Amino acid sequence: MIRLSPPGHQRIELTPVFEAYAGGGEYNVAYALARYGLRTGWVSRLVDNPLGHFIRNHAKSSGMDVSEVIWAPFDGSGRADRIGLNFTEVGIGVRGSVTLYDRGHTAISHLKPGDVDWNRIFSGRRVRWFHTGGIFSALSDSCAAVAEESIRAAHENGAVVSYDLNFRSKLWSSARAIEVTRNLVPAIDVLIGNEEDFQKVLGFEVDGVDESMSRLPVDGYKRMVEKVVRAYPNLSIVGTTLREVVSGLVNNWSAITYCDGAFYPSRRYANLEVEDRVGGGDGFCSGLIYGLLRGMSPQDSVDLGAAHGALLQSTRGDTSMVTIDEALHVMKGGSARIKR
Amino acid sequence: MIRLSPPGHQRIELTPVFEAYAGGGEYNVAYALARYGLRTGWVSRLVDNPLGHFIRNHAKSSGMDVSEVIWAPFDGSGRADRIGLNFTEVGIGVRGSVTLYDRGHTAISHLKPGDVDWNRIFSGRRVRWFHTGGIFSALSDSCAAVAEESIRAAHENGAVVSYDLNFRSKLWSSARAIEVTRNLVPAIDVLIGNEEDFQKVLGFEVDGVDESMSRLPVDGYKRMVEKVVRAYPNLSIVGTTLREVVSGLVNNWSAITYCDGAFYPSRRYANLEVEDRVGGGDGFCSGLIYGLLRGMSPQDSVDLGAAHGALLQSTRGDTSMVTIDEALHVMKGGSARIKR
Amino acid sequence: MIRLSPPGHQRIELTPVFEAYAGGGEYNVAYALARYGLRTGWVSRLVDNPLGHFIRNHAKSSGMDVSEVIWAPFDGSGRADRIGLNFTEVGIGVRGSVTLYDRGHTAISHLKPGDVDWNRIFSGRRVRWFHTGGIFSALSDSCAAVAEESIRAAHENGAVVSYDLNFRSKLWSSARAIEVTRNLVPAIDVLIGNEEDFQKVLGFEVDGVDESMSRLPVDGYKRMVEKVVRAYPNLSIVGTTLREVVSGLVNNWSAITYCDGAFYPSRRYANLEVEDRVGGGDGFCSGLIYGLLRGMSPQDSVDLGAAHGALLQSTRGDTSMVTIDEALHVMKGGSARIKR
Amino acid sequence: MIRLSPPGHQRIELTPVFEAYAGGGEYNVAYALARYGLRTGWVSRLVDNPLGHFIRNHAKSSGMDVSEVIWAPFDGSGRADRIGLNFTEVGIGVRGSVTLYDRGHTAISHLKPGDVDWNRIFSGRRVRWFHTGGIFSALSDSCAAVAEESIRAAHENGAVVSYDLNFRSKLWSSARAIEVTRNLVPAIDVLIGNEEDFQKVLGFEVDGVDESMSRLPVDGYKRMVEKVVRAYPNLSIVGTTLREVVSGLVNNWSAITYCDGAFYPSRRYANLEVEDRVGGGDGFCSGLIYGLLRGMSPQDSVDLGAAHGALLQSTRGDTSMVTIDEALHVMKGGSARIKR
Amino acid sequence: MIRLSPPGHQRIELTPVFEAYAGGGEYNVAYALARYGLRTGWVSRLVDNPLGHFIRNHAKSSGMDVSEVIWAPFDGSGRADRIGLNFTEVGIGVRGSVTLYDRGHTAISHLKPGDVDWNRIFSGRRVRWFHTGGIFSALSDSCAAVAEESIRAAHENGAVVSYDLNFRSKLWSSARAIEVTRNLVPAIDVLIGNEEDFQKVLGFEVDGVDESMSRLPVDGYKRMVEKVVRAYPNLSIVGTTLREVVSGLVNNWSAITYCDGAFYPSRRYANLEVEDRVGGGDGFCSGLIYGLLRGMSPQDSVDLGAAHGALLQSTRGDTSMVTIDEALHVMKGGSARIKR
Amino acid sequence: MIRLSPPGHQRIELTPVFEAYAGGGEYNVAYALARYGLRTGWVSRLVDNPLGHFIRNHAKSSGMDVSEVIWAPFDGSGRADRIGLNFTEVGIGVRGSVTLYDRGHTAISHLKPGDVDWNRIFSGRRVRWFHTGGIFSALSDSCAAVAEESIRAAHENGAVVSYDLNFRSKLWSSARAIEVTRNLVPAIDVLIGNEEDFQKVLGFEVDGVDESMSRLPVDGYKRMVEKVVRAYPNLSIVGTTLREVVSGLVNNWSAITYCDGAFYPSRRYANLEVEDRVGGGDGFCSGLIYGLLRGMSPQDSVDLGAAHGALLQSTRGDTSMVTIDEALHVMKGGSARIKR
Repeated sequence: MIRLSPPGHQRIELTPVFEAYAGGGEYNVAYALARYGLRTGWVSRLVDNPLGHFIRNHAKSSGMDVSEVIWAPFDGSGRADRIGLNFTEVGIGVRGSVTLYDRGHTAISHLKPGDVDWNRIFSGRRVRWFHTGGIFSALSDSCAAVAEESIRAAHENGAVVSYDLNFRSKLWSSARAIEVTRNLVPAIDVLIGNEEDFQKVLGFEVDGVDESMSRLPVDGYKRMVEKVVRAYPNLSIVGTTLREVVSGLVNNWSAITYCDGAFYPSRRYANLEVEDRVGGGDGFCSGLIYGLLRGMSPQDSVDLGAAHGALLQSTRGDTSMVTIDEALHVMKGGSARIKR
Repeated sequence: MIRLSPPGHQRIELTPVFEAYAGGGEYNVAYALARYGLRTGWVSRLVDNPLGHFIRNHAKSSGMDVSEVIWAPFDGSGRADRIGLNFTEVGIGVRGSVTLYDRGHTAISHLKPGDVDWNRIFSGRRVRWFHTGGIFSALSDSCAAVAEESIRAAHENGAVVSYDLNFRSKLWSSARAIEVTRNLVPAIDVLIGNEEDFQKVLGFEVDGVDESMSRLPVDGYKRMVEKVVRAYPNLSIVGTTLREVVSGLVNNWSAITYCDGAFYPSRRYANLEVEDRVGGGDGFCSGLIYGLLRGMSPQDSVDLGAAHGALLQSTRGDTSMVTIDEALHVMKGGSARIKR
Repeated sequence: MIRLSPPGHQRIELTPVFEAYAGGGEYNVAYALARYGLRTGWVSRLVDNPLGHFIRNHAKSSGMDVSEVIWAPFDGSGRADRIGLNFTEVGIGVRGSVTLYDRGHTAISHLKPGDVDWNRIFSGRRVRWFHTGGIFSALSDSCAAVAEESIRAAHENGAVVSYDLNFRSKLWSSARAIEVTRNLVPAIDVLIGNEEDFQKVLGFEVDGVDESMSRLPVDGYKRMVEKVVRAYPNLSIVGTTLREVVSGLVNNWSAITYCDGAFYPSRRYANLEVEDRVGGGDGFCSGLIYGLLRGMSPQDSVDLGAAHGALLQSTRGDTSMVTIDEALHVMKGGSARIKR
Repeated sequence: MIRLSPPGHQRIELTPVFEAYAGGGEYNVAYALARYGLRTGWVSRLVDNPLGHFIRNHAKSSGMDVSEVIWAPFDGSGRADRIGLNFTEVGIGVRGSVTLYDRGHTAISHLKPGDVDWNRIFSGRRVRWFHTGGIFSALSDSCAAVAEESIRAAHENGAVVSYDLNFRSKLWSSARAIEVTRNLVPAIDVLIGNEEDFQKVLGFEVDGVDESMSRLPVDGYKRMVEKVVRAYPNLSIVGTTLREVVSGLVNNWSAITYCDGAFYPSRRYANLEVEDRVGGGDGFCSGLIYGLLRGMSPQDSVDLGAAHGALLQSTRGDTSMVTIDEALHVMKGGSARIKR
Repeated sequence: MIRLSPPGHQRIELTPVFEAYAGGGEYNVAYALARYGLRTGWVSRLVDNPLGHFIRNHAKSSGMDVSEVIWAPFDGSGRADRIGLNFTEVGIGVRGSVTLYDRGHTAISHLKPGDVDWNRIFSGRRVRWFHTGGIFSALSDSCAAVAEESIRAAHENGAVVSYDLNFRSKLWSSARAIEVTRNLVPAIDVLIGNEEDFQKVLGFEVDGVDESMSRLPVDGYKRMVEKVVRAYPNLSIVGTTLREVVSGLVNNWSAITYCDGAFYPSRRYANLEVEDRVGGGDGFCSGLIYGLLRGMSPQDSVDLGAAHGALLQSTRGDTSMVTIDEALHVMKGGSARIKR
Repeated sequence: MIRLSPPGHQRIELTPVFEAYAGGGEYNVAYALARYGLRTGWVSRLVDNPLGHFIRNHAKSSGMDVSEVIWAPFDGSGRADRIGLNFTEVGIGVRGSVTLYDRGHTAISHLKPGDVDWNRIFSGRRVRWFHTGGIFSALSDSCAAVAEESIRAAHENGAVVSYDLNFRSKLWSSARAIEVTRNLVPAIDVLIGNEEDFQKVLGFEVDGVDESMSRLPVDGYKRMVEKVVRAYPNLSIVGTTLREVVSGLVNNWSAITYCDGAFYPSRRYANLEVEDRVGGGDGFCSGLIYGLLRGMSPQDSVDLGAAHGALLQSTRGDTSMVTIDEALHVMKGGSARIKR
């Protein structure tokens, strides 16, 4: 997906210029992990035109392997396969950020079971971890089927499977999300969501949350997660980010992770200044996965996830622009004092 | 008026580049109301050159009717009628925003009684509401006379007349402002001002305000307004915005409106992040007028005014860049959580 | 349609930023004529989201009437009605400009006969001139049907009908274009095309043109036009622009118009520097139409069209940014010496 | 004067942003000569506000002495002394550059005889050369009087006096220019003009020039200059630049200088690419003056003037951005091959 | 030194564009004092190429005298004398600002004793104050020797000597800094440092400071300063800035100055918004020096220093962009309310 | 190397902003060939800091393999290994482009024989082609030694060796270049140079070339190349680009290649508009190598080289931003007509 954003805090309707960024749920996680030196690949379907090449160039710059990307021919008119777009503006004060999707009829939404040879990809235990999530499943019925196909193949070939619930009301209804996702969870090992995802995508309520989610009760989330793991005992890890929106530029940010019967709350970032909040959840995912793959403790892993998510929100664009050393510095409580 | 502003927080003296915006007291109110779908016109006098066309294009883009604008010929040298300019920089931290006026000898300052046929414009009750204010009156003696002429015509033709006191010490003295304005108030229905206007433009003191206006006592304002309506019983509504400046980027923002004997305080926006504070008062006016014209309650109207004023300050430039739906969302206490 | 363009001569694939412009065939003509003070309306179908509002704001800024635009609701996902996009980069040297269409599934492509009450619009001879063209017809079968419906209604209500052939190979085949267009011409009064349109859209060959169209023989075009008017004797005017591409930045530019049995060649602009060649044909159309509507001679009208087309290519974006006085200055052979 | 210019080839009416430059006739000459290491001062009257400081900072950066600048207090409203502005856009193709003056009521236009102690400044033969010109004289009657006062003082104190005729039709009529200037010439040593100045400011016709000045006959200019020096035998040098406008971006550029009875034509720059043609004449003046002050021959001096004028037009803004070594390189016929 | 910075909060590694600023420890102090009207000179060694000229132009724009700058010839390859560069990005949230030095092999680092005739410069008590500091001393052994040479010459010629400790761990070790600096202090009158400098450059510990310096105990600093003045009784003034880093954009900022046996704490700026924190210490120095040179009291001087440091951090770049009036306004507790 | 360039035609000395590009002789060739789908690697030595990462990211985005890059640790001060920089401005008109090198003390200049295991890299005939050139050899004596070491290893392992003479007078003298290069040629298969390289780097004169190289006689080049291949009979191919500088923006551009006893002149691009001429020679090399590796004829290969070089000069930055299809289109004489 290419994101087009007005500079500063300008508005989509009134800007003369848009900044362009590549991004996407799985993409952002793969991008960050490749930056940090892990061998990482990304499977998708792109159009063979300059917009598809824009994403390819950006993906490659991180070092991620894009050799499994399927290239759809460009029909010249944009009627057949398109590159997904979104127009995102960054809010301030009482005005929140806004994302406008233009992701109908995309090449990836036309991906269907059988297009990718998942068993070849996961064979021989070459892949240790497979990550996907709810936005992909929501793109189309065939994408939901591919999600199931790929998760199953990964699971059966011994890869850890993580799944970011990532509810998007514009792409599907909560009811349809629940219907699709419940079917996937039994093959998932690591389940991740934010303050609203578990309810909207799996149907688990959190007690004590008001509609505007201005205050998020940690205990309520814990009880909800306990219900989730009772329902899906295959889950070894359940991570959830908690974002309280103080204003357009200031959020409270933290995460909590359930792992093998215990809860690990992250460092809490109160009054975190946010340059661009998009991608924070993916930043959490990639930090958590990095920690777990590197053999860190659950506490360190959730702390790295939260720190990386906080740092990702300090730059414009959906993808991580920090180094793993910077994430570790913040994870350990390091200050924002100048480095020179 | 065209505003020229350095990008970001750069300074007029040292910037290589200026952003250009159209704006002005009445202009901003008309612009917002036209955006929100009300039939709106704007009467002014512009120079027939590219700078005048700059304003015309921007005005038209909102849908406001500019057919009553008087076009002064351009003499080529800028000695006769000019387009008013201001150079405005946006402060941060301990450095406040600065506006540098360059609005002498403008086409509008040369407007004189008789130039506009106000009775034709207001005839037949075609116009429900007429809004002007203290900056226009301050531009020149002939403008002050036109203010009186237009207010009277509007009043006599049955339009509601609102007037934003909007004191500008650079344009006239407090003494002259009081002399002119006291004469106008008897034909005004809705009087609007900010934390300092009532004193500087009408001579009513507020108790308990220090010079830097860092804390604004609501009770003091109420007592002051009570004095105002005793002096001018024709006033049905008196609105006042209250801005406490925490820093260049953070203000406390609220409003309070007197209506038919009662006070309606708005929601208070504590620690409101401000992208650009210019136009906040006009945002309040236009929100309030919209509410009243749409038949909202006084409480809802002042809340809409304050919300709209808060939102207007979330973008660069003097004019509103939000939608009425966004203003209603904030008015109802809606959060700044991302919309996607 | 919104056009997104890299600044300068940067490439779509590698730019960090896109400039945004509104444009479109009929749109550009309506925009220019409204700028020049003619009462002008534009009928289209837009999505009710910030991208649709972007176009609306720009349209209104020229003064054109958009009250007949149909607003399609936004489904939030971009799967239903979309705003058409194109990504256009400006070439230089041996590298030509490139336009990448992303205009499938647009709100306008879903317009169908009956959606617009053309007879009401054209009734009472309120509309003197109706202009549409081949890009609109190419968008979808229903658009082709609407083209026929609207042209017929205009013709029957006494409006002059002009049609810009505007072949786009990415949107339909030459065969399909010919099939659709031959059906429309009998109700058209003024037919306009460029160096390749008559062949691709109507099937009339031009003798002596090589594949790269580096040299365009005026005599060949005349003979071709003579064949066209023999085939469609209802045509009173046939205009054709002739562009020889010297390089990315330099074109030879002229036009020739047939009118009532005679040919009127325009002033020829040899080695014309081109800031952005997109919209040149629309600039020709609008200049020609302006001239004819204002009662200019055929020679002056074609000269105004060519001059306006040349000037339109001196700015970025598809729409005219000049004044009618500037177009008249160039039409009369005026120099590019500084005006101060 | 501050110049505000749209980037690239955008238009004043439609640009969202303006680039800011300091400039002015005498200012540009002083700026260049200070850059090249000559001890140079500039006398003017500026407003003591950020716009005045903008000019001061830029002036000082070249090293020119601004200690004789008179600082007018800022009244806060822009009604009294203003900083002169101009809005200048850069044309391309058939569209010429446009300058829009906003220089009425400026601090400098209010300068009057007696404000500056010219005799102190020129005393003791401290000043070898004094340069002023027709734009300053045109600003107001009092400026014309100051021009006379200063020229006389310079002349009487033994400074060489140069004067650039620089006709501006927007600032005064040709008749008034002639009336004022004829009075000044007897105290002038070096008289400079462009292709139209001698006619408009002194009343000397050039034979063989058409209205659009597309071809400038060198012989005609020579005969005209001969008439000038017959009329004003005090003139030791008469320089004239000759600009033929091929297009917005391409000019033919040269100069010819009369010196002590002989003519010295400069190298001719055919098809010179012009980034911004404003200031070319001042570039010629400063190059010529530099050459003469450094003791170069008349031929070298005119060649340096023309080369410097050509180079000045290779950058945006009115002031020279090259080095004296670069000017000497071009003066000697040096190529535009990359230096690395 | 030229600083290259990504716009906004972008990162060095990923930005397509860098903003350029001139700066440096002594440079920033000289620049500010020249802006405020003091006669100020700056002694350095620059390369005679466009990068050196970049610094020269900026320096001159403030009015500072650069006639004592030594110009090293440019060898064309960058192998010999270079202009020092740094790449600095501005952090936000949990991400601090980062400066990357590229200042090896610079022209200034090759300055050696005897290159500058300090005794001539300071002779005749023409210079009232001499300021240098620890960054210069750290550049090379020969710079350390020049620091000693210049301080001694200034001291012996009766100039007040101020020295900003300014520790940079990337340029030398704490041990080497202590070794060099202890030798310099006996000739210094005014010693300035920040929260960590006294320890790193002179070896004096502060009690009660944790490693991240999130809370700075004023009493600890006082006791440390008392130890310093006991060790170096020649010091008449010891100033220290205290910065507590709340986040990338928000710092607590204050200063405390010891003067003749008493401590003068400045106004404390809690939650100061910081546009760019670089140069804050130099802003303190220049404000303090200005106050002392103008004969202000120690309290006013430290308050001016802290106010000026706070204001300097409200703009991008290392140098002061405010006026002395603005600094005095903030020093007196003035608000950030808009000035218009 | 990172290149920092003022936007447009601004000057290094006076720009507020620099655009950043990665580039370098071998780098540009590897980048282009990787873009076109060949398996390509680049061997270099970079500093492990954000500037090194800037180059790494850009390199990876093309797909080139950077796993053989040696990462020098960053010392924090820039005194040890640096990233090479150059400041390059783009000329116009009579002002040529200027490149200012800041490439002393770079990590790559410290590369020495033995640092890279060339035999491992070239072993097993895994590498078909090895390209390096004169800029690398000129960086330092140890680089010259590495050039010899690598060329020998490539040659002995059966790779085709190409070498771009690329003389840079700022990096070494002609005498030293000849001394080093003569030693290398016997192991080289494909020798490439521009209009001056053969003389400066190998000592072969071309008859009939004047100093400014405004007209380049093809026959003279042929005779010179004949002498070269007589002296070095091992050379199978000698390519030379011929650039005649018409102006800053317009060059005549062509190439001629000797292959196995015959000469193949390329299509000649007269009056080629040049957006940025840097990298043109590398564009020729990469096009030629691509052709030869793909089995094209010598004529097609030189035509592809010249076309690719022409296209590379249509974008800012040193690296190719076109596609192989675009290069083939131009190679076949394709026009610059818009593609849409």
